Amino acid sequence: MSPLHATISNKADSGAASRAADVWHGQSRRVRVQEVGMRDGLQIEQAFVPTAEKIALVDALSAAGLRKIEVTAFVSPKAIPSLRDAEEVFRGITKAPGCTYSALVPNVRGAERAIAAGADELNLVMSVTETHNLANLRMLREQSFAGLRQVIDTVGGAVSVSVSLSCCFGCPMEGDVSPGQVFDWVQRFADLGVVGISLCDTTGMAYPSQVHGMASEARRRWPEIDFTLHFHNTRGMGLANILAGLDAGVRHFDAALGGLGGCPYAPGASGNVCTEEVVHALQLMGYDTGIDLQALLDAAARLPALIGHDMPGQLVKAGPRWKTHPPPADLAEIRQRALEK
Amino acid sequence: MSPLHATISNKADSGAASRAADVWHGQSRRVRVQEVGMRDGLQIEQAFVPTAEKIALVDALSAAGLRKIEVTAFVSPKAIPSLRDAEEVFRGITKAPGCTYSALVPNVRGAERAIAAGADELNLVMSVTETHNLANLRMLREQSFAGLRQVIDTVGGAVSVSVSLSCCFGCPMEGDVSPGQVFDWVQRFADLGVVGISLCDTTGMAYPSQVHGMASEARRRWPEIDFTLHFHNTRGMGLANILAGLDAGVRHFDAALGGLGGCPYAPGASGNVCTEEVVHALQLMGYDTGIDLQALLDAAARLPALIGHDMPGQLVKAGPRWKTHPPPADLAEIRQRALEK
Repeated sequence: MSPLHATISNKADSGAASRAADVWHGQSRRVRVQEVGMRDGLQIEQAFVPTAEKIALVDALSAAGLRKIEVTAFVSPKAIPSLRDAEEVFRGITKAPGCTYSALVPNVRGAERAIAAGADELNLVMSVTETHNLANLRMLREQSFAGLRQVIDTVGGAVSVSVSLSCCFGCPMEGDVSPGQVFDWVQRFADLGVVGISLCDTTGMAYPSQVHGMASEARRRWPEIDFTLHFHNTRGMGLANILAGLDAGVRHFDAALGGLGGCPYAPGASGNVCTEEVVHALQLMGYDTGIDLQALLDAAARLPALIGHDMPGQLVKAGPRWKTHPPPADLAEIRQRALEK
Repeated sequence: MSPLHATISNKADSGAASRAADVWHGQSRRVRVQEVGMRDGLQIEQAFVPTAEKIALVDALSAAGLRKIEVTAFVSPKAIPSLRDAEEVFRGITKAPGCTYSALVPNVRGAERAIAAGADELNLVMSVTETHNLANLRMLREQSFAGLRQVIDTVGGAVSVSVSLSCCFGCPMEGDVSPGQVFDWVQRFADLGVVGISLCDTTGMAYPSQVHGMASEARRRWPEIDFTLHFHNTRGMGLANILAGLDAGVRHFDAALGGLGGCPYAPGASGNVCTEEVVHALQLMGYDTGIDLQALLDAAARLPALIGHDMPGQLVKAGPRWKTHPPPADLAEIRQRALEK
């Protein structure tokens, strides 16, 4: 049981995290919320968001204070038509100092295109389960690993590289995934010198005790690796999973504006955890995200018109908790009638 | 920082809670999820759910293992037309042993009706803020308190009484609410001998650090009171708030099937935390809810047809995490083509 807290103030302490801090009270601890909606979200949309709108969204996100944005994917335009303007988007954005602009690349050709277009970081993806890797990437896992190793060997010196491991918390087709299976792949990429690894809950199967256990053990085994946790809110556990990861010491979390995203192999799934909801919650708890929430809400409010449908995120509709509503117009009369009772 | 956990198993320990337990790992600790959707949810619906359907839902909920169900409200049929069949519903349900069937009552007349109809517990409601109390109940808080005291004095001996304090974590019209303001009302009801008090987040303004602080302090001050926490998922923090409350030692939580509910004074708000999502998450974490999740999902799946619109809860759509999906029909061919590369 955690120590009792006699105050509900969420005023952040000025200074470093207290040793007595629990996960509920951020105490100005820094958390990096990383935007993946422009890639993990837009890739599955039917609508093609015009290039100028994509550029404006990325610029709005960096202006809001995001410090890592996955901008697009350098893949075949036939595979992902909605991201066929990867070069134009990268060339159109205004890079903010201190922000890392990453791109998903599937192979050396994609990596070369991404580097030429100005990507700061390459995101390499494979699944820890054979069935999901075959279904999603049309390759056996060993073939994916060989291809990604080739990317790392070829261009790894020129830009930083991170690896996203899909289905770390369960596979929608194979079911449970053992931590040992995940850690084997972490070790193989660590052996290649990769220092950024995302443990991805591709279809919303992660739950807090599992997250806490796996993240704690991963940090214990590989203290030199910068782990990111990537959750979907498919079953309503997204924020709880982030807090479990925070309590295990992870500080980097993927999220998508408006809760964009989903997975074609998990019907009915809602999207990634919603960037503005995660930032809103963490800021209320006293964590330092460095992000301007209102700017994020303004950007999220533009999405439905661009995508052609409603977003899972609720915060744009409800407003932040500090946005009050006017009382009923006849409140004075209600009060008067009450007083006359 | 919590101790490291080297396993992601969610197998529940057979036995009492370990002293080293953290909130992420339930270790068979008992949690009571209490259903409020039949009252807090249906009261704001335009559709009148037929009496026989209400009875069938309540019976399905108790058969699923719920041990406290707020069945309806004994109020003026003009005030809440959708609950105008309160007597018929209470007389129609099949009471399960060990389940408490409660009813909201606004006054002595309502309490007498509820007791006559067979309610096991009366739920009395007032707001801790004047503006919300006036807007919602058309009375000053002191008038509400006097009326509720009259109910307690008149019928409190015949059945158990619980008090729900609205807006404990913020008022949609007045904004922040101080813990002192909440605790003053808790004290006044404690002085009347009330032992069941719900701290209600009527419009989804609660956040985890606030919940942890207020619940910890409330339990410290009133160890004899049985506190319930009541959250809405308006801003995506429902489950995280429940975990913060659990970490503070609270074991009773309100929730609504399908995420039913809302508040007319907080436009755009989604509903109560969703019963089946809360149960799904807590069970995965190893808590003992005593509830049959599939029975709950079956009941929740009936709601959209009864209410005439979609529900906020995602779990009915996505299915529990252990429900796998078939791989693509051409997986064998994909594998063969991959092997030939």
